[in-house]
Amino acid sequence: MKTKVVLAFSGGLDTSFCVKYLSDEKGYEVHSVIVNTGGFDSEEVAAIERKAYALGVASHRTIDITEAYYQHCIKYMIFGNMLKNNTYPMSVSSERIFQAIAIVNYAKELGAKAIAHGSTGAGNDQVRFDLVFQIMMPEAEIITPIRDLKLSRDEEIEYLKKKGVQDNWERKSAYSINKGLWGTSVGGRETLNSATWLPDDAYPTPLQKDGEEMLELTFTKGEITAVNGQEMKAVDAIRLIEKLGGAYAVGRDTHVGDTIIGIKGRVGFEAAAPLILIKAHHLLEKHTLTKWQQYWKDQLSVWYGMLLHEAQYLEPVMRDIERFLESSQKYVTGKVFVKLMPYRFEVKGISSDHDLMNAKFAKYGEEMTAFNGQDVVGFTKILSNQMKIYFSVNHESIR
Amino acid sequence: MKTKVVLAFSGGLDTSFCVKYLSDEKGYEVHSVIVNTGGFDSEEVAAIERKAYALGVASHRTIDITEAYYQHCIKYMIFGNMLKNNTYPMSVSSERIFQAIAIVNYAKELGAKAIAHGSTGAGNDQVRFDLVFQIMMPEAEIITPIRDLKLSRDEEIEYLKKKGVQDNWERKSAYSINKGLWGTSVGGRETLNSATWLPDDAYPTPLQKDGEEMLELTFTKGEITAVNGQEMKAVDAIRLIEKLGGAYAVGRDTHVGDTIIGIKGRVGFEAAAPLILIKAHHLLEKHTLTKWQQYWKDQLSVWYGMLLHEAQYLEPVMRDIERFLESSQKYVTGKVFVKLMPYRFEVKGISSDHDLMNAKFAKYGEEMTAFNGQDVVGFTKILSNQMKIYFSVNHESIR
Amino acid sequence: MKTKVVLAFSGGLDTSFCVKYLSDEKGYEVHSVIVNTGGFDSEEVAAIERKAYALGVASHRTIDITEAYYQHCIKYMIFGNMLKNNTYPMSVSSERIFQAIAIVNYAKELGAKAIAHGSTGAGNDQVRFDLVFQIMMPEAEIITPIRDLKLSRDEEIEYLKKKGVQDNWERKSAYSINKGLWGTSVGGRETLNSATWLPDDAYPTPLQKDGEEMLELTFTKGEITAVNGQEMKAVDAIRLIEKLGGAYAVGRDTHVGDTIIGIKGRVGFEAAAPLILIKAHHLLEKHTLTKWQQYWKDQLSVWYGMLLHEAQYLEPVMRDIERFLESSQKYVTGKVFVKLMPYRFEVKGISSDHDLMNAKFAKYGEEMTAFNGQDVVGFTKILSNQMKIYFSVNHESIR
Amino acid sequence: MKTKVVLAFSGGLDTSFCVKYLSDEKGYEVHSVIVNTGGFDSEEVAAIERKAYALGVASHRTIDITEAYYQHCIKYMIFGNMLKNNTYPMSVSSERIFQAIAIVNYAKELGAKAIAHGSTGAGNDQVRFDLVFQIMMPEAEIITPIRDLKLSRDEEIEYLKKKGVQDNWERKSAYSINKGLWGTSVGGRETLNSATWLPDDAYPTPLQKDGEEMLELTFTKGEITAVNGQEMKAVDAIRLIEKLGGAYAVGRDTHVGDTIIGIKGRVGFEAAAPLILIKAHHLLEKHTLTKWQQYWKDQLSVWYGMLLHEAQYLEPVMRDIERFLESSQKYVTGKVFVKLMPYRFEVKGISSDHDLMNAKFAKYGEEMTAFNGQDVVGFTKILSNQMKIYFSVNHESIR
Repeated sequence: MKTKVVLAFSGGLDTSFCVKYLSDEKGYEVHSVIVNTGGFDSEEVAAIERKAYALGVASHRTIDITEAYYQHCIKYMIFGNMLKNNTYPMSVSSERIFQAIAIVNYAKELGAKAIAHGSTGAGNDQVRFDLVFQIMMPEAEIITPIRDLKLSRDEEIEYLKKKGVQDNWERKSAYSINKGLWGTSVGGRETLNSATWLPDDAYPTPLQKDGEEMLELTFTKGEITAVNGQEMKAVDAIRLIEKLGGAYAVGRDTHVGDTIIGIKGRVGFEAAAPLILIKAHHLLEKHTLTKWQQYWKDQLSVWYGMLLHEAQYLEPVMRDIERFLESSQKYVTGKVFVKLMPYRFEVKGISSDHDLMNAKFAKYGEEMTAFNGQDVVGFTKILSNQMKIYFSVNHESIR
Repeated sequence: MKTKVVLAFSGGLDTSFCVKYLSDEKGYEVHSVIVNTGGFDSEEVAAIERKAYALGVASHRTIDITEAYYQHCIKYMIFGNMLKNNTYPMSVSSERIFQAIAIVNYAKELGAKAIAHGSTGAGNDQVRFDLVFQIMMPEAEIITPIRDLKLSRDEEIEYLKKKGVQDNWERKSAYSINKGLWGTSVGGRETLNSATWLPDDAYPTPLQKDGEEMLELTFTKGEITAVNGQEMKAVDAIRLIEKLGGAYAVGRDTHVGDTIIGIKGRVGFEAAAPLILIKAHHLLEKHTLTKWQQYWKDQLSVWYGMLLHEAQYLEPVMRDIERFLESSQKYVTGKVFVKLMPYRFEVKGISSDHDLMNAKFAKYGEEMTAFNGQDVVGFTKILSNQMKIYFSVNHESIR
Repeated sequence: MKTKVVLAFSGGLDTSFCVKYLSDEKGYEVHSVIVNTGGFDSEEVAAIERKAYALGVASHRTIDITEAYYQHCIKYMIFGNMLKNNTYPMSVSSERIFQAIAIVNYAKELGAKAIAHGSTGAGNDQVRFDLVFQIMMPEAEIITPIRDLKLSRDEEIEYLKKKGVQDNWERKSAYSINKGLWGTSVGGRETLNSATWLPDDAYPTPLQKDGEEMLELTFTKGEITAVNGQEMKAVDAIRLIEKLGGAYAVGRDTHVGDTIIGIKGRVGFEAAAPLILIKAHHLLEKHTLTKWQQYWKDQLSVWYGMLLHEAQYLEPVMRDIERFLESSQKYVTGKVFVKLMPYRFEVKGISSDHDLMNAKFAKYGEEMTAFNGQDVVGFTKILSNQMKIYFSVNHESIR
Repeated sequence: MKTKVVLAFSGGLDTSFCVKYLSDEKGYEVHSVIVNTGGFDSEEVAAIERKAYALGVASHRTIDITEAYYQHCIKYMIFGNMLKNNTYPMSVSSERIFQAIAIVNYAKELGAKAIAHGSTGAGNDQVRFDLVFQIMMPEAEIITPIRDLKLSRDEEIEYLKKKGVQDNWERKSAYSINKGLWGTSVGGRETLNSATWLPDDAYPTPLQKDGEEMLELTFTKGEITAVNGQEMKAVDAIRLIEKLGGAYAVGRDTHVGDTIIGIKGRVGFEAAAPLILIKAHHLLEKHTLTKWQQYWKDQLSVWYGMLLHEAQYLEPVMRDIERFLESSQKYVTGKVFVKLMPYRFEVKGISSDHDLMNAKFAKYGEEMTAFNGQDVVGFTKILSNQMKIYFSVNHESIR
């Protein structure tokens, strides 16, 4: 009886090669699986399934985890206003983890002894997949033909041709695109060089609208619950905002950052919904959270983002941080007003019952009833005490 | 003999009232002073001097500290990519401190026994002035007539009229504007309410150009040293970039934040040069600093910005942080390419001899010579060790 | 009808003065209250009640909040291994907050219009009381006769004598002692000077035992649940450990720290139970938590301790931190072995089902089955990548 | 011509094996080197040299880097009061790095093509050596026979016997001891198990004195410059304090911590001088630094210690942190009084011209001249503002 291997399958060249190689050269019973985190529609998923069977897999499974991906990850990225290096919504880095978890659980269900993925030896994804597989299923063999054999695209195509598999792999597009619910990454020749940048048409979503348009987003305890007054589930809201913002070609940028393996990487992306949601949510927090809540949320969120990006979503401290973040969202409820314009958006204002700017007895720049100028004199005297002592004791003068 | 008081004088209603009140009602010998941090040109400064003498001051002094303000403060704000709440370049908050320091030093030089300022009891500036005065000259009396008397604008105008002083104070502009080298703040009716926003024409600098324009910024050890290939002093570069960016109405935004006195405040601003410089400098750092250098710079910079904003520039830890920041800039040298467009700009790329993306032996997504896929397998195993142990020891399974 | 005032009453000189002053000079109806956080036994509490009525209060109330103090505060201080400046268990600082909360709630229950306390204008306690009163009952008048009148001890005694109140206040003890469930503070002449220190006999609990004794502490999810195998409630365990450790005069030290009002303060303390519990709990965590859980717990705990010490227990971020801390304690379950000796103790070892040192497949210094030396070679290569690139790109050599 | 290899040589079994193995089996020209970080006296060093030549090395070199180790590392560990996990002075972890650096520089000087060390595949030291070698000399081959061959002690002894090398390796001591200037680590059977602990006589330095003894330590800008009034170099002071404190068997403890490779490790140590110096220095800082200086020093020091412990001393952020630490020591000058007693010590007090407790105008618990009770009332009102607003806006009541 053949050994079962579960193969993370995308329908691309690398994983197509893996199907043939694992079954024909290595004698495995190959069970392909694709985990949809919201980037594929039903037609695309069906096409991938047809490809898998055409390549001769023993079985193919499509697992949709969009809702779980939102509940266990995107939600916290919004709570934490998480943008890697203040730029990138971690579109790819976050979804890989949840794909890996779904794949392991599928491998266990299937009784597979091995898990295969098509990663090369040069990127981040190999670490994300390997790490989750090792932790959740240490007894499984992990197989990575592309990394191990160090094959070129041409060699893979040649091999598949010999096996009778033809596709349009030769006409490789100039840009490598990865689409998910939380944004689309765009890599190409220009992102490999620090001094060049992606041309406008490298981005899959073109500018479709001119003029400007207001968007009203409703958050409830930090979660998006309505768009333009229409209540809907968070996943649907994300899709709708992506569509509305995408029409204005909003959310494009280039991320430069440190990869898990210690080298610098650069990638373009378009992510209208993540950028709009995070900036809107952040503005609402500026009005509803105290200074120290904001400070500590930032601290923990930078770290949550870093560990998530660097494959360590399963580190237990992540669960502890999630409890903090949830607690902080208690009053992050209200509406945010966003203006969409070609290539940009502005978060203009908010309305919330929990707006700390609305205190009747203390408004900035107006006469206060809760304190007066004399209180501020006292405050300043006490606040300056330690510095006053420092300069006095040390006989230090200030330039 | 009359007691000398140094009065921080801007030529506005509040400080004009102070001149008359302090000399006529309180019997002080009033020495007015204006400290220019780069926001006033020579005509404005001369006009303020004329006003002061017209009000009857014993002497008036103009002190220009633009260069010192850059060297002791703006420089570090650029090193630290400092934007309060990820938005505001601390245009006003930073310059007040240096104005206060210059005023105290002038008071000492003059042998004054008192220092007066026109702050009200409702804002941040009173804390900034009081605190610096108290620390640097604890023996000086601090006088704040507006705060103490709680007068309305009309009462002040009335008083001045009775004293024979006329000006166009009644025609108060709809927006209160504060201009400095590091940006211009704009407050008005709309910023007092969370759900409304400044109209386009509230911003002093109108859109003057259409189309787009590239800008090349050269940084040397973190400091701006050339614009479009032209070497110049940092202060001149800031003025030039403000002019070039301002033509595109770049750098407008609204800041919502926590004031020193614990209430929320909201203010509009335009700050083309600060925004462009900080974003450009930040991109250069993403290429030239290690991950942990960036992480710790961010940590310390948030804190530096907070203490600066909250009047505590003289806290000794600020000097320690400055040493860290200087050290971190050792290789932050190179060119940054910026594209200006109406209402927005993009930092497109960089060129630097110290670009860590340029390592010959390790480029992301390419085959590495310094390590191979097998090394990454080992890396991932070790990286996962603690989590593997955690889940094994605790018999915990992952959903 | 007289206005009701609730007075925080300890039976000491200051608060005795307050009773007479508030009723006789100010015409209030004085309702005294003492909030026991575990520092007073039933006899002491009864004696204080007698004193109160002898002074003529309209009513006296004793409120015991020991259990609530543990549940809302001590528990989190143990979770966070909190020692201010790495030394002081915040014995006094923490209990004042909970006393203040109980007093406000009592004032509301009673329909009082004012709250009085005996704090002077020189210490931390005035801030703790005022702040909680202001936040929870902003409409209440706060009365602080000692602070306002700036009376000396002699003047207070004189006044009380005139009113016919006699006590042994003249024979003031050399040391001012404050006892609570979470430790006893000791202030005196020696603590006012940086170069002198408390003599042995200034500490209330003398050395009673010689030799050594083992103590076995059982923690369940971070909470103490048994002592020497005997299950008991946490508050009872704290009392028992205090008694056992106190017999060895364990837990004495001197705290030097920054007060809320910006000046340095110094105070001796004895706190056997807090020190033993915190050190034991910390050791258990070293075995059961991951590196990053420990790191972030430390970060948040330092801050929690600082805000607690500085009167800001009601800051909402404290509730968020508590959620993090609770989450982190999931597996902090096991036994800790402590050795008591005169004036010192040692935490010797632990036993726990969740001990991460006990992984079958990976023990330090032994041959591992989960990875081998070659994996470590790969790990080290990847770990060194960024530094390798840094030194190569920058042509920097190392001394 | 034979290829030159530099071998880190200690004279123990593992590295003795390496000499024979590298020359006889692998045909290298073996140049042994021992780097003394202060743990070996001249006799020990001479004995190791004799062993090396007896084993047939081509050359042997002793490099003493004690002073450099102090200047580049120990100094900063004192500035930062660095104790790993609040316990361990990083005795071994820090010296390994500097040994590695000296070895690489020697290999370059000698024109060697390879560097060998005797580490196994299970510990931290392999990472420290490999990492420094790879970064500083990426072109060198790194050879680790013990790790690669996975030999047992018996096999190594057998091999050496066959080669005619005899020593007393069979009589392996029960405890593995590593001695350096910054402490001595002690590992043994008891440290491999969480619930057992080292017996008293496992520690190399026995208790030699009873009674008690005062020690006066003088620090100048954070560095130890005199002991009991006698000026001396820091390295000499460390040796003297170790001798004085060691006589009282002070500074023993057990460290439980996370190793670089993700597993938990446990080790005993004795380190009288490090513990005394760090606790004394810390107390002096509590008196001379501001609150925020202490806070940020702690933050950066924990990280400095972590990166140092985890082999990443060459990470550029370490240089940036060193600048911060140096700056912070500006006024850390004064005397500290320490009391030595059997098995323990107490830091009793300090005397310093820069003591912030000595301000004439503001002493804790006394009447202040710089501010009064009314100022504190104002301070507290402002400090409570945000919380007051929060509870009011959110209609939240406090239990």
